[in-house]
Amino acid sequence: MPVEISSRVAALKNVATRLRIDCVRATTEAGSGHPTSCASAADIVAALFFSEMRYDARNPQNPDNDRFVLSKGHAAPVLYAAWAEVGLLKREDLLTLRRLDSDLEGHPTPRLSFVDVATGSLGQGICAAVGTALNARRIKSEYRTYVLLGDGESAEGSVWEAAEAAAHDGLDSLCGITDVNGLGQSGPSIWNHDMEAYAAKWRAFGWHATMIDGHDLPEILDAFEEARRTKGQPTMILARTLKGKGISIAEGKSGWHGKAFKKGEELDKVLKELESQLVPEDEPAPLPDGPRTRRDNSRPSSPPSKGTVGTPSYKIGDSVATREAYGTALAKLGDGDERIVALDGDVKNSTFSEKFEEKHRDRFFQNFIAEQVMIGSAMGLAARGAIPFPSTFAAFLTRAYDFIRMACISNVNVKMAGSHAGVSIGEDGPSQMALEDLAMMRAQPNMTVLYPCDAMSTERLLELMAYHPGPVYMRTSRPKTPVIYGPDEQFAIGGLKILRESANDAATIIGGGITVFEALKAYDQLQKIGISVRVIDLYSLQPIDSRSLLRCARDTKRIITVEDHYAAGGIGDAVATCVSASGFTVERLCIRDIPRSGTPEQLVDHYGISSRHIVAAVAS
Amino acid sequence: MPVEISSRVAALKNVATRLRIDCVRATTEAGSGHPTSCASAADIVAALFFSEMRYDARNPQNPDNDRFVLSKGHAAPVLYAAWAEVGLLKREDLLTLRRLDSDLEGHPTPRLSFVDVATGSLGQGICAAVGTALNARRIKSEYRTYVLLGDGESAEGSVWEAAEAAAHDGLDSLCGITDVNGLGQSGPSIWNHDMEAYAAKWRAFGWHATMIDGHDLPEILDAFEEARRTKGQPTMILARTLKGKGISIAEGKSGWHGKAFKKGEELDKVLKELESQLVPEDEPAPLPDGPRTRRDNSRPSSPPSKGTVGTPSYKIGDSVATREAYGTALAKLGDGDERIVALDGDVKNSTFSEKFEEKHRDRFFQNFIAEQVMIGSAMGLAARGAIPFPSTFAAFLTRAYDFIRMACISNVNVKMAGSHAGVSIGEDGPSQMALEDLAMMRAQPNMTVLYPCDAMSTERLLELMAYHPGPVYMRTSRPKTPVIYGPDEQFAIGGLKILRESANDAATIIGGGITVFEALKAYDQLQKIGISVRVIDLYSLQPIDSRSLLRCARDTKRIITVEDHYAAGGIGDAVATCVSASGFTVERLCIRDIPRSGTPEQLVDHYGISSRHIVAAVAS
Repeated sequence: MPVEISSRVAALKNVATRLRIDCVRATTEAGSGHPTSCASAADIVAALFFSEMRYDARNPQNPDNDRFVLSKGHAAPVLYAAWAEVGLLKREDLLTLRRLDSDLEGHPTPRLSFVDVATGSLGQGICAAVGTALNARRIKSEYRTYVLLGDGESAEGSVWEAAEAAAHDGLDSLCGITDVNGLGQSGPSIWNHDMEAYAAKWRAFGWHATMIDGHDLPEILDAFEEARRTKGQPTMILARTLKGKGISIAEGKSGWHGKAFKKGEELDKVLKELESQLVPEDEPAPLPDGPRTRRDNSRPSSPPSKGTVGTPSYKIGDSVATREAYGTALAKLGDGDERIVALDGDVKNSTFSEKFEEKHRDRFFQNFIAEQVMIGSAMGLAARGAIPFPSTFAAFLTRAYDFIRMACISNVNVKMAGSHAGVSIGEDGPSQMALEDLAMMRAQPNMTVLYPCDAMSTERLLELMAYHPGPVYMRTSRPKTPVIYGPDEQFAIGGLKILRESANDAATIIGGGITVFEALKAYDQLQKIGISVRVIDLYSLQPIDSRSLLRCARDTKRIITVEDHYAAGGIGDAVATCVSASGFTVERLCIRDIPRSGTPEQLVDHYGISSRHIVAAVAS
Repeated sequence: MPVEISSRVAALKNVATRLRIDCVRATTEAGSGHPTSCASAADIVAALFFSEMRYDARNPQNPDNDRFVLSKGHAAPVLYAAWAEVGLLKREDLLTLRRLDSDLEGHPTPRLSFVDVATGSLGQGICAAVGTALNARRIKSEYRTYVLLGDGESAEGSVWEAAEAAAHDGLDSLCGITDVNGLGQSGPSIWNHDMEAYAAKWRAFGWHATMIDGHDLPEILDAFEEARRTKGQPTMILARTLKGKGISIAEGKSGWHGKAFKKGEELDKVLKELESQLVPEDEPAPLPDGPRTRRDNSRPSSPPSKGTVGTPSYKIGDSVATREAYGTALAKLGDGDERIVALDGDVKNSTFSEKFEEKHRDRFFQNFIAEQVMIGSAMGLAARGAIPFPSTFAAFLTRAYDFIRMACISNVNVKMAGSHAGVSIGEDGPSQMALEDLAMMRAQPNMTVLYPCDAMSTERLLELMAYHPGPVYMRTSRPKTPVIYGPDEQFAIGGLKILRESANDAATIIGGGITVFEALKAYDQLQKIGISVRVIDLYSLQPIDSRSLLRCARDTKRIITVEDHYAAGGIGDAVATCVSASGFTVERLCIRDIPRSGTPEQLVDHYGISSRHIVAAVAS
């Protein structure tokens, strides 16, 4: 080995040893954590942070920094230790790990400036990394994305969704490293140390795959160089490692997953052993080179322009499905804002995201039938400044609920649209009907939930959701519905519309989406028999306009909700939360059984949410 | 081709043609559906039903019948047509497709005797097929499982979870067929007709893979024979097909996905073309051979024995985590009932399902970190008579929500356990905390939701859940909690326990799991200042004991819920549904922000669900 390289290797080896020491100290101080999962990855992380990656160490948010995603989030201490080694964190702060007053949580979250998305639910980080790699293209940056996976997490199907998406898009700026330490939580990982088993899979999915000894620094550095030289496809470096490397009581042994070493003799012994592994070095590892892409910072950059849907072209009485209005509006919004991107899961002609694709082909990502990587890559895109709109049937967003959960923990700007909500889709049957999506979305405390009933409100709400901070969900419907709002109508996140109102209303009927029209039909029928009711379009379920709902409850005494959704967690529960504290009861019309196939009209009536049932409820 | 084979092929070819005709007729009559996706699969289905599969055509539920899972559920009409061809359905009934009064729904559901699990959410059927194949081993039957996938659905990560699980278990009784028609809904499928791309993937995942022309019946029959001869690994037959095969206006063309042919000229032309493809045959295809395994039916079979946890060994005051009590009870229950099986996602030493594994190794399935195939294969096992208990961290059940949704549509006996609920897990942070699981589970109308607070109730509820029909979820906790119930205490699905009660209670405090103990602590503190409160352990959230809750509301006027769960969809909403119709308000203590790391005690207090907050709420 030439002197220069050997000197650099010695310095990196010492970085790795210090990372192991820091991880052991921090987890013992916390009394829990994963020191052995950090130890297997330490050499790889040292090589990344002090040789391979190019980034501004003082500004982790520099848009041209190489990105590092720790998909094996339980190795969080090695990430924190690396940033301490770089100088962004104080070394002593590492000892606050997992404490309530510290941002150094058990698994990484974007409370920390150097974390793009929260990890810790395995198999998600690589999906987010696909998103950050796609973002590099979007902003025309040469940054590269590195993602570190565990071998255990390779069993998650989402990893193979990411593999497929990255290969399909030829993401050669993406470099994965699998830390194959051979041990899962409860025993050997599925393919243990069978490196060829991993390589065959990644190659079959279209990646360049290379196998190395994950503790041999020259091999690690060579593999990164090979990845950089590989064009047209992403690279996966399969690194054979030992869990607990460098710590003889734990190295390569089962039974040490997620265990901190005990203070006292055990800790002292481990630290002494690790310290003995420090080697003489000529000079310490230098700080990383800055980003490849240099932006001209002499001109002050203007804030990004916002898009607008302009003046919608709908006329009152037009018949347009909200899903179609969604696509139309998104395409227009994209005209004025380069940050808007769309993703879809092979249903673009049903969600109408194809309208966006037609106008903005380079900002449309086809994820085929793979909802997890669709939401995961949207998370990565959002973390790097894009405003992604992933869409599919609302029913199939349940496929990505763990990703949605993590998007909320990350509080990223993911703007989801779910079409084909409820029994009103008709003949396709229950597998295609979202009847729990409102419950699933409302359960997340920082999720905004919107549910427009007509094309005009869809356009306006889409414009609002794009620029509302944090995750947002819009529920759209399959059937065509009449346009009821004019172009000057104002909407607000957290608002509602009172569509019918009089001084002597016998009840307030609250609907959303298609049931707004059932409520309006019921209104007309009730008028004929001399009964007035108030009708509300509850287009924003979270946040919700409690004040107006309460006022209506006080005015009319009776509150009846009507929704194309199961009983729990939807409009009924949302309204109840607002009015029940003041003693008002919510009567609910909703889907109480698992539905079957039929025409939309039949199902809406059969399952009890049609105008006929509203009239009966009011009259009862 | 020898005469005998050619005669058989002619007969099968005619079966396939009749299937196409039936699918075209049925979808046109329904006015929607997927005739072209049926047409690509018709030759494969004809070969399966009239040559390859061995089953009792009069009794689709014969336990030794070969199983057929239509993973590409949108091709439902070809499944229905095949059973009509076999004679189980009347041919004219096919024309009731997708009607409200017909069980022939848009996608298959187990309302039909020949459907094991509902399909239509792509990538799930193959997971269920892993379960039915595992079941053959369990009941020592030689039946084989066939599963038909679309090429589009191969993009779902769950398909690769199934691939990995089936290869790991060496399931040579499992034979997949991918109908590679090259076209998805919105355009070409991800790998189109690149058959080698599919084969490389399946081989890398450890399957025997073979490529055929999916319209060449001798090739199809040979591939099935090869699959039967392949031992120690599952087989995937990759069948190159044309979407809309046999119908020249649609064959191999984009733009025909999910479209029925129009009545009149278009339909007539299509039918005429298909009818012209009928060939002369010597004799019609014979009905299938019966099952390979022949049971001795001369002795009347006794009903399967139920297991029992016996007399639990806990003493009041013992300190045991409910997750550990779960494992202990499950192991005992398995002693008395061979149908009980357990599945886990590499956290058996956290969920304590390892206790079951230790006693019943042949009935424990390790799914590594792959929650979708864990729930999916549990669905398949349940459909064939097993009583599967899949377990993981409750947070990671969100990964399988689409599977849970379909398990509910299927109404199968899947008994899920989610451990590590809520902020009380402590230092690991939000990624590992389930705070939306109750909302997610309660949203499904036929899901039973249980939440024991101590080891004794865990044992009793586990025994009940095993034999309660339909899907059941049990939420368990990480921290140890004191045993408060004696061995003679009775529990019921839909019950609750009033732990403290007096004639002059100022409020009713309702908790579940760890918050029951916060409520009991608050009770003691309030007693000291002369305030009595009622305390309820709401161990059954769905169904729920409305009557008792309402009685307590009437007695105490105030209702306060305390839960280690987000605000929406949990205990507060469940209780409100019971009492708010009578004008009672539910005050809620719950987790209102996305939490962070800390000790369990710190977090329970910091996020407002500790005894201190209960006392303050009562006193306010």
